[in-house]
Amino acid sequence: MLKRLTTKEYIDGILAANRMILSRAITLIESNLPADKILAREVLNAVLPKTGNSIRIGITGVPGVGKSTFIEAFGQFLTKQGKKVAVLAIDPSSQISKGSILGDKTRMEKLVNEPLAYIRPSPTSGGLGGVANKTRETMLLCEAAGFEVIIVETVGVGQSETLVHGMVDFFLLLMLAGAGDELQGIKKGIMEMADLIAITKTDSGNELQADLAKVAYQNALHLFPPNQTGWYPEVLTCSAITEKGIREIWQSIEKHSLLFTENGFFQQKRSEQNLAWMDDFIKQSLEEKFYQHPSVSHHLKNIQQEVSEGKKLPINAAIEMLNLFYQS
Amino acid sequence: MLKRLTTKEYIDGILAANRMILSRAITLIESNLPADKILAREVLNAVLPKTGNSIRIGITGVPGVGKSTFIEAFGQFLTKQGKKVAVLAIDPSSQISKGSILGDKTRMEKLVNEPLAYIRPSPTSGGLGGVANKTRETMLLCEAAGFEVIIVETVGVGQSETLVHGMVDFFLLLMLAGAGDELQGIKKGIMEMADLIAITKTDSGNELQADLAKVAYQNALHLFPPNQTGWYPEVLTCSAITEKGIREIWQSIEKHSLLFTENGFFQQKRSEQNLAWMDDFIKQSLEEKFYQHPSVSHHLKNIQQEVSEGKKLPINAAIEMLNLFYQS
Repeated sequence: MLKRLTTKEYIDGILAANRMILSRAITLIESNLPADKILAREVLNAVLPKTGNSIRIGITGVPGVGKSTFIEAFGQFLTKQGKKVAVLAIDPSSQISKGSILGDKTRMEKLVNEPLAYIRPSPTSGGLGGVANKTRETMLLCEAAGFEVIIVETVGVGQSETLVHGMVDFFLLLMLAGAGDELQGIKKGIMEMADLIAITKTDSGNELQADLAKVAYQNALHLFPPNQTGWYPEVLTCSAITEKGIREIWQSIEKHSLLFTENGFFQQKRSEQNLAWMDDFIKQSLEEKFYQHPSVSHHLKNIQQEVSEGKKLPINAAIEMLNLFYQS
Repeated sequence: MLKRLTTKEYIDGILAANRMILSRAITLIESNLPADKILAREVLNAVLPKTGNSIRIGITGVPGVGKSTFIEAFGQFLTKQGKKVAVLAIDPSSQISKGSILGDKTRMEKLVNEPLAYIRPSPTSGGLGGVANKTRETMLLCEAAGFEVIIVETVGVGQSETLVHGMVDFFLLLMLAGAGDELQGIKKGIMEMADLIAITKTDSGNELQADLAKVAYQNALHLFPPNQTGWYPEVLTCSAITEKGIREIWQSIEKHSLLFTENGFFQQKRSEQNLAWMDDFIKQSLEEKFYQHPSVSHHLKNIQQEVSEGKKLPINAAIEMLNLFYQS
């Protein structure tokens, strides 16, 4: 572990867009050491006025949909236009495997070498809610370092999408054509969150299938009510190889951004996300303190067993545990 | 307010299927008076061994879909077969209006007069989570009083469906044909929870539209992956007037029940629901205690304002509030 820098060194480094220091500040955020947490908060507070100026894009899709290749092509499209792009990841499974979806250095080989791009793997500790909060903070640091587009990548497993959706301005769902829709494992709730569905791998003779899938997804989207923002989710086809559709996807994001800025939903969404973040953090802290309490954790297994078998009323079990907690 | 009965009088009355006493016990459960709460828990504990023997059915659908008339027809179909049916309701909107979707006595006029049926309006206080917990407890009392089918009705607004889904064995979604699917306001996430979709009002020349809607919903359901229980959600058409399809709906529920009992998912689901109920109750209590704390509630508005405007980091605001809470 590297020696800690001073608070000022972190702050100045981030504001000067020094990547080495940005990375070390993110490591601070991901740390569970109390001293690191305090330092991280000082840094975040200092850079707070310089945050909030990016477009935050969540990208999801099942494994095999080509998320990395898409993000590589999409990221390069943006860097070619001179935009600074940061790619972050949320991977709850890495909690278990201690691996990370972006840990593999061979992924996004080209984008990783773009001077305007910055790629950061998923934090690997802290529980799902913890990972989400760390990603939110990382996003702020990246914004303070001048990144204009922040991509938050997630794997298609349900809970992490909801978390990512709660921290981004635009939610992009990648889908495959012709893989048997029922095999894609995308939950309806995730489709509903999408601001745009992009069908990947529309190349090498796959074009017709992609067009058919496009119609099917458009129909599926039409089954559900429009939201009140005035935005109608689009379905587009794209290819990371031929770069077909990449520009159109960006244009759709820009159009969305313009609409939301004009009608006030952009600011409203961010305000709501901030309040939700605060509330999440409070609830998480309360629950952690409760479940980590020695008497609680000592009795939990047995009580859960009784509840699970229907021998004890859940509410009674809960009150017993709460009494244990408040009494000591 | 009637005088309280003794614990024994409540218990004996419920086990003897005395409706008057059952109603008074439910009133006890809905009460927020500490003495009532203690009494209610004593009663629940005593009858606990007699609970769990019903089929719990959640029924939802947007206003206008004909929920009451459907439940009336469906309930009468069951009582004609000698089954004891209880109808409960969850209505979060009644929190605001202090009304209740089942409060109107003219609803379910016929079912309400069936000796084998019992209808209870939604509790009107306690917050959404509180209402859910009270309904769970009411369900147990009804089971102890010998009801074999418990119907939990909800209005189509998203959050309450998830709560109901978390406390029933079978989730039935009612849909209209030809009303313009996009107008029905049913969220994808709710469709995903459905074990069965029933298209209502399949009568008076509406049959063709209903059949078309059936195909559309079947296709929509096929877009999504099968679950691991081996159950494939069906789409059926029905009419509360002609009673067409009512029998088939009950047969589908029985088939589901049989499958789930045989493959163990019935018990597994109930165990999980009990553990989730305990966890819900704990989290709710922790949050209530926090947000009702005098220092917390005194400072909350101002801090939320700062967070909402981006002037204060959500995590800092949260920590400030948590310190206020733990310090006193």
